[in-house]
Amino acid sequence: MKPTGETATFAASCRLILGECRTALARIDPAAVETLLGAILAADRVFFVGVGRVLPSLEAMAKRLNHLGVDTVVVGQITEPAITGRDLLIVGSGSGETLFPVAVARKAKTLGATIAHIGSNPDSSLKPVTDIFVRIPVRTKLERPGEIVSRQPMTSLFEQSLLLFGDSLACMIVARRHVDVKSLWRRHANLE
Amino acid sequence: MKPTGETATFAASCRLILGECRTALARIDPAAVETLLGAILAADRVFFVGVGRVLPSLEAMAKRLNHLGVDTVVVGQITEPAITGRDLLIVGSGSGETLFPVAVARKAKTLGATIAHIGSNPDSSLKPVTDIFVRIPVRTKLERPGEIVSRQPMTSLFEQSLLLFGDSLACMIVARRHVDVKSLWRRHANLE
Amino acid sequence: MKPTGETATFAASCRLILGECRTALARIDPAAVETLLGAILAADRVFFVGVGRVLPSLEAMAKRLNHLGVDTVVVGQITEPAITGRDLLIVGSGSGETLFPVAVARKAKTLGATIAHIGSNPDSSLKPVTDIFVRIPVRTKLERPGEIVSRQPMTSLFEQSLLLFGDSLACMIVARRHVDVKSLWRRHANLE
Amino acid sequence: MKPTGETATFAASCRLILGECRTALARIDPAAVETLLGAILAADRVFFVGVGRVLPSLEAMAKRLNHLGVDTVVVGQITEPAITGRDLLIVGSGSGETLFPVAVARKAKTLGATIAHIGSNPDSSLKPVTDIFVRIPVRTKLERPGEIVSRQPMTSLFEQSLLLFGDSLACMIVARRHVDVKSLWRRHANLE
Repeated sequence: MKPTGETATFAASCRLILGECRTALARIDPAAVETLLGAILAADRVFFVGVGRVLPSLEAMAKRLNHLGVDTVVVGQITEPAITGRDLLIVGSGSGETLFPVAVARKAKTLGATIAHIGSNPDSSLKPVTDIFVRIPVRTKLERPGEIVSRQPMTSLFEQSLLLFGDSLACMIVARRHVDVKSLWRRHANLE
Repeated sequence: MKPTGETATFAASCRLILGECRTALARIDPAAVETLLGAILAADRVFFVGVGRVLPSLEAMAKRLNHLGVDTVVVGQITEPAITGRDLLIVGSGSGETLFPVAVARKAKTLGATIAHIGSNPDSSLKPVTDIFVRIPVRTKLERPGEIVSRQPMTSLFEQSLLLFGDSLACMIVARRHVDVKSLWRRHANLE
Repeated sequence: MKPTGETATFAASCRLILGECRTALARIDPAAVETLLGAILAADRVFFVGVGRVLPSLEAMAKRLNHLGVDTVVVGQITEPAITGRDLLIVGSGSGETLFPVAVARKAKTLGATIAHIGSNPDSSLKPVTDIFVRIPVRTKLERPGEIVSRQPMTSLFEQSLLLFGDSLACMIVARRHVDVKSLWRRHANLE
Repeated sequence: MKPTGETATFAASCRLILGECRTALARIDPAAVETLLGAILAADRVFFVGVGRVLPSLEAMAKRLNHLGVDTVVVGQITEPAITGRDLLIVGSGSGETLFPVAVARKAKTLGATIAHIGSNPDSSLKPVTDIFVRIPVRTKLERPGEIVSRQPMTSLFEQSLLLFGDSLACMIVARRHVDVKSLWRRHANLE
């Protein structure tokens, strides 16, 4: 965890980050990924909740999946609709203890939604309400055995892995559904 | 650019993404990175502007740099202050032609701010107002020679590279300033 | 425009604000309101764009209209879809000169969308692309004849009038369509 | 609570809304307003938390107070700093039972911050952690005696009153501190 001079150059920093991302992604259980992907494609709508730097990674995931035809909602957006029993809530939280995501997950569970947790801690407060758990075993503030100890500051590795994980789901959908990538721009915001 | 069956599995998708990110980061000029890092550390405040999936990557950068003591602002946040001649504006835009970032960059230039453009296109509408250009040579909608042609959908590779690039700056700051990483949590939002 | 001691108490401030809001709303042309309301109800989707404190007022309008069955989008939301010729863009801008809204309106016009401008200045940069203009004649930074000169700071009166104007549209829809108000909670975000 | 034909015209809707706002603001205790204003001016930083349409009203308040020299933060903004015992948290919640604001208020209380609740329900879950309570007695989903029963849809009246209340605080500060209103534009975002 302690910073060393070895990341003083750009090349060394990139090497560290890419190496850690490769390790983290390789530790994700492909069977859990398949389960999550199936739930995403089966849901009426997919809601996303997270805070801090996890939120931007989830937003990127929500936007790309939306391009691929999945109806996505980021919890907190001003036009957030009501969640139903046919919807999926994806909770991004390394520790699984973050205040807001845990509260939202519990509420969504009572409303019948399916709950997927992408996190590091398999025994968190989210466990009782989680239907699908995808583990990215990156050490967060708590220490648990079997976790990757990143040399980057804070939980950067979790947030990076989450973005790349979301984009790997996108690649899988493109490949399996033979999506014409050029066609995706049609769904893209065009007021930019 | 055309999708192939080769990313039908999670492992293959991760391999594709990580390989492309490695190639993209390796193509960034380290001298330009040093110039940008110097400008970030010298500025009173660092503003960030971007749209679409570029915005989440910039937000992640803004948040991490903020933890490291840089005073950061995302253009559009409700409490956005006035920019001055002692501030730096970082524009994230692959094509360098995106409506809002270009308009903001031009305005910021007239107000005396330093303009840094992180993008792919070296000859964009941003060129006349850009002081520092960091090129991540990933093909966007336009086609230019010497660019990496990603097999991922849309401009995912640019957005991924941008996040990892921002985090490499963070690693460099940590290493050079001998930052005690544990101390960073003190500046972190504590209402989550 | 100059502040006076007369708003030193809460009661006096409320009196000033409510009086100014009444004057501003009374100066809106009811025929223009009908035209806008018709366009809102006829559109496939209604997009909203504004900056500063105009944005919260527009967000409130987008959310309430959404409860009433109008498909609304705030420009810049992460899941913003593409605008089409069957959509309406509502631009909130007192001066009609604000950088981002003007740029977005011009872009939307080229894409065939209907453009409605709610503002104070009838001769702004928005005029050439505006299909429907609803004037709330509150003086902004520029001075034009026939405008209400508010004694509140900055453009507060415009932002207040905009919120109340949006909510008056909601009341009109409720009354004309005999909406059962209790039923509205069904569409409301339920993860709060 | 049931919608009637009486708001079928714009003029009638405006009359209804302004009348209800006047009644609601008149029912706020001026002594509570003074206490809140004192706490705002004494705090190092003022944090705001709310959801739904309450959030835009709070954002507008945060922005205007910021123009007047108060250091304001909206909970959830990407650069949200850590709250301390010298800070004030303003919670906007009619019912005082909204999930996220209640959770944030409890957390902030344990961190030593002063908690102000602007709401309708004086006996809510927020009561045990509230230092300053400003009541806008507008009926929300729950029914309590002594509350104003609005004829507008949902909790529009609370959200309107909250915006106008925030702007009345701004007017009071301007009058008491003899603020030169023109000078405020200097602190305003200038990239719009």
